[in-house]
Amino acid sequence: MLFHVQMTVNLPHDLDPARAERLKAEERARALDLQRAGTWRHLWRVAGAYANVSIFDVEGPEELHAILSGLPLFPFMDVRVQALCTHPSSLEAAGDR
Amino acid sequence: MLFHVQMTVNLPHDLDPARAERLKAEERARALDLQRAGTWRHLWRVAGAYANVSIFDVEGPEELHAILSGLPLFPFMDVRVQALCTHPSSLEAAGDR
Amino acid sequence: MLFHVQMTVNLPHDLDPARAERLKAEERARALDLQRAGTWRHLWRVAGAYANVSIFDVEGPEELHAILSGLPLFPFMDVRVQALCTHPSSLEAAGDR
Amino acid sequence: MLFHVQMTVNLPHDLDPARAERLKAEERARALDLQRAGTWRHLWRVAGAYANVSIFDVEGPEELHAILSGLPLFPFMDVRVQALCTHPSSLEAAGDR
Amino acid sequence: MLFHVQMTVNLPHDLDPARAERLKAEERARALDLQRAGTWRHLWRVAGAYANVSIFDVEGPEELHAILSGLPLFPFMDVRVQALCTHPSSLEAAGDR
Amino acid sequence: MLFHVQMTVNLPHDLDPARAERLKAEERARALDLQRAGTWRHLWRVAGAYANVSIFDVEGPEELHAILSGLPLFPFMDVRVQALCTHPSSLEAAGDR
Amino acid sequence: MLFHVQMTVNLPHDLDPARAERLKAEERARALDLQRAGTWRHLWRVAGAYANVSIFDVEGPEELHAILSGLPLFPFMDVRVQALCTHPSSLEAAGDR
Amino acid sequence: MLFHVQMTVNLPHDLDPARAERLKAEERARALDLQRAGTWRHLWRVAGAYANVSIFDVEGPEELHAILSGLPLFPFMDVRVQALCTHPSSLEAAGDR
Amino acid sequence: MLFHVQMTVNLPHDLDPARAERLKAEERARALDLQRAGTWRHLWRVAGAYANVSIFDVEGPEELHAILSGLPLFPFMDVRVQALCTHPSSLEAAGDR
Amino acid sequence: MLFHVQMTVNLPHDLDPARAERLKAEERARALDLQRAGTWRHLWRVAGAYANVSIFDVEGPEELHAILSGLPLFPFMDVRVQALCTHPSSLEAAGDR
Repeated sequence: MLFHVQMTVNLPHDLDPARAERLKAEERARALDLQRAGTWRHLWRVAGAYANVSIFDVEGPEELHAILSGLPLFPFMDVRVQALCTHPSSLEAAGDR
Repeated sequence: MLFHVQMTVNLPHDLDPARAERLKAEERARALDLQRAGTWRHLWRVAGAYANVSIFDVEGPEELHAILSGLPLFPFMDVRVQALCTHPSSLEAAGDR
Repeated sequence: MLFHVQMTVNLPHDLDPARAERLKAEERARALDLQRAGTWRHLWRVAGAYANVSIFDVEGPEELHAILSGLPLFPFMDVRVQALCTHPSSLEAAGDR
Repeated sequence: MLFHVQMTVNLPHDLDPARAERLKAEERARALDLQRAGTWRHLWRVAGAYANVSIFDVEGPEELHAILSGLPLFPFMDVRVQALCTHPSSLEAAGDR
Repeated sequence: MLFHVQMTVNLPHDLDPARAERLKAEERARALDLQRAGTWRHLWRVAGAYANVSIFDVEGPEELHAILSGLPLFPFMDVRVQALCTHPSSLEAAGDR
Repeated sequence: MLFHVQMTVNLPHDLDPARAERLKAEERARALDLQRAGTWRHLWRVAGAYANVSIFDVEGPEELHAILSGLPLFPFMDVRVQALCTHPSSLEAAGDR
Repeated sequence: MLFHVQMTVNLPHDLDPARAERLKAEERARALDLQRAGTWRHLWRVAGAYANVSIFDVEGPEELHAILSGLPLFPFMDVRVQALCTHPSSLEAAGDR
Repeated sequence: MLFHVQMTVNLPHDLDPARAERLKAEERARALDLQRAGTWRHLWRVAGAYANVSIFDVEGPEELHAILSGLPLFPFMDVRVQALCTHPSSLEAAGDR
Repeated sequence: MLFHVQMTVNLPHDLDPARAERLKAEERARALDLQRAGTWRHLWRVAGAYANVSIFDVEGPEELHAILSGLPLFPFMDVRVQALCTHPSSLEAAGDR
Repeated sequence: MLFHVQMTVNLPHDLDPARAERLKAEERARALDLQRAGTWRHLWRVAGAYANVSIFDVEGPEELHAILSGLPLFPFMDVRVQALCTHPSSLEAAGDR
């Protein structure tokens, strides 16, 4: 089941720099693990923003929320979620894929 | 070069139904062609909306605009474009892919 | 799997009244069927608005979209979808229910 | 009398962690009490957000405000309230329930 | 039980003028009746707008919705509802009134 | 001359609690005085919010601004002002009151 | 008593051109009259928009509303009103004027 | 004197196609003339939108408004204007150009 | 050349009070100077807000920006600028003034 | 490949002044370098705002993001990006340039 997620990160300017670096490193490690597991199916940077567009493949909203709320940078994120489904004009729907 | 596009379709209620059907059929054919060509890399329906989330792989803004403005339903669409780039926490950036 | 949906209906003032009545009657019949089937778990009117707040219990986004886009009044609706999950402070999470 | 409430929590990053934990524990205890009393009829987590969707069954706006403004996390919440009523297409209105 | 309602009227420019006049006259008669009954407690015009600010005194959301959705101009209104309660700094709360 | 004012209070979480209490007490005393003087004609709490809806009866914008900007909590308020006038469908306009 | 008004005109594209011209001519005549009377104290065009910024000097909201709602183009206007008062840093307040 | 203008065109779907074509051709001719005259200094298409970003070099707001309001498609445009000035970090300010 | 400017001041609650007072006094002195010079043509307080509406008469955007960005409270202001021109329905355009 | 970027800077009032000055000086040096290299093709100040409008000529979104996210003031900026392409009514499209 696919979900489209746009995350925008707002780090407070007075956040301790060492803590910020640790959070970013943990975030990166977590993102790589979830991508390798196939759960975090796509991850792109939005040009010009501290933001990403992501596609998650999960069992449902419970798993999605567990993943997102467990991200080290989650407390500093604005997160937008959209549930996705097969598009009638997609190759999948046309039986091509 | 990747672009993230969210298209929302607003068909006027007094649009001639035959014209609407023809436009939708042409839109579908065009979408399938562009997907087969690898240009329209992903196409998902947003659950609960007459809208899609798409990823285009194009030469640049010129080609992107030519494609989008040439879609049969373009005059009825609200279109949001975001330029994408490699995310530093992606498998690509990590050399895994 | 639960989804929270807020639907707001905007009927054009020049819609044929007979067609409007037929659409509303079909919408009502469909809503009753889906409630009896347990899919449309809750349906409330928002006071002062031609709008409802609904909870759907579905297999996933595909089923949700099929239901919503199949509603007779869908072309006239503004629809907002939020995926729901168990709240850690709910009775369910506490094992009370 | 039913009210639909969406609460979004924004904890300042420099809030004392011990105070935050205490507030969350008190919030959870209060939520469980109110659910057991039947006042807080439904409580769902919105996937991907530090937010909930809730249905309250109260005597009126006075009781609703007393409950909401008394929540330990209220000073950190963005709260949206909608008064609900029976939907004409609901099973209740149809006499099925 | 008090509700604060702001109504903004948007009459389509191609609405039949006779129908518009009839709707306005019916709206006025209905408003006067409800004010005489004590239900529509206050009714003010917002300067510079085809809009009003109103206070309703009703049994609850059901009655409020029945009144608002029954107004002749309701299909052309944007309606905002806020539930009110006693303010702790009011004369009522201080026991002065 | 009537003005409709909606005030929403946002107290910073790191405001000294003693100062906050003093400001609230002063605000309450000032509100009671102005109500007794007939200037602050109505004062209601918006259910679920640290906000009020108020009606002021003043000589004009000068007096309104002097009152609002002199409120102890003014620096922490978001204030919306609407000038009111007699509604043509009100009892006043109909000569009933 | 001064009010700041920003008016933006939206003429429907299918409005009868003769009626549009008549409305504009009447609007202009009315604006000139009110300026000569000293009521419409300032009238500026916003560059790049079918909009104006105006300052009215009136007895109060009643007169302001009578003027604005009586403008021939009022049904096609988006109108924003702000009540003005003397600024403490103005020459008037400093006793220079 | 430079002004930054973003124009978004919204042609009604029921506009006569011949009239639409004529307006577009006239718009194009006018845009070319103004570019050749050096007044319309830059003109870019926004990818994915029926919109442009433009830089105008004019005597002042009067000339800017005369140009914009005289464009054949002006009645169908949403226009945003920003006045520009030399940036302190530009080559011009640094004396390089 | 006229520009319409709306300035809204947001002083952080933890700004040193002595610095705040000094900034306000400097702002007032600067505003009086510019009014006496005829550059700051009008200055009004918006009732109920720490905001003003102003009309500046300047050589162009360069001078306007120099003035605005040089105001002592500029770092704490939200500033909206609109370029103005003669309105075709004004007394000036009609040759009356 | 051209991108239109609008950057608005929000420096926190409690940022160390020496650090702010250093960041601004570094930002200026970086902007001058990129302009001399032809990458930052245009840079204008928006009158009345701590903001600029810029045109970048880059290889694609990757280079654009590297440049923007590397700007010393990037953590304090709100950045809006629009991909540009040749306008059909431009001199370039007409073969004049």
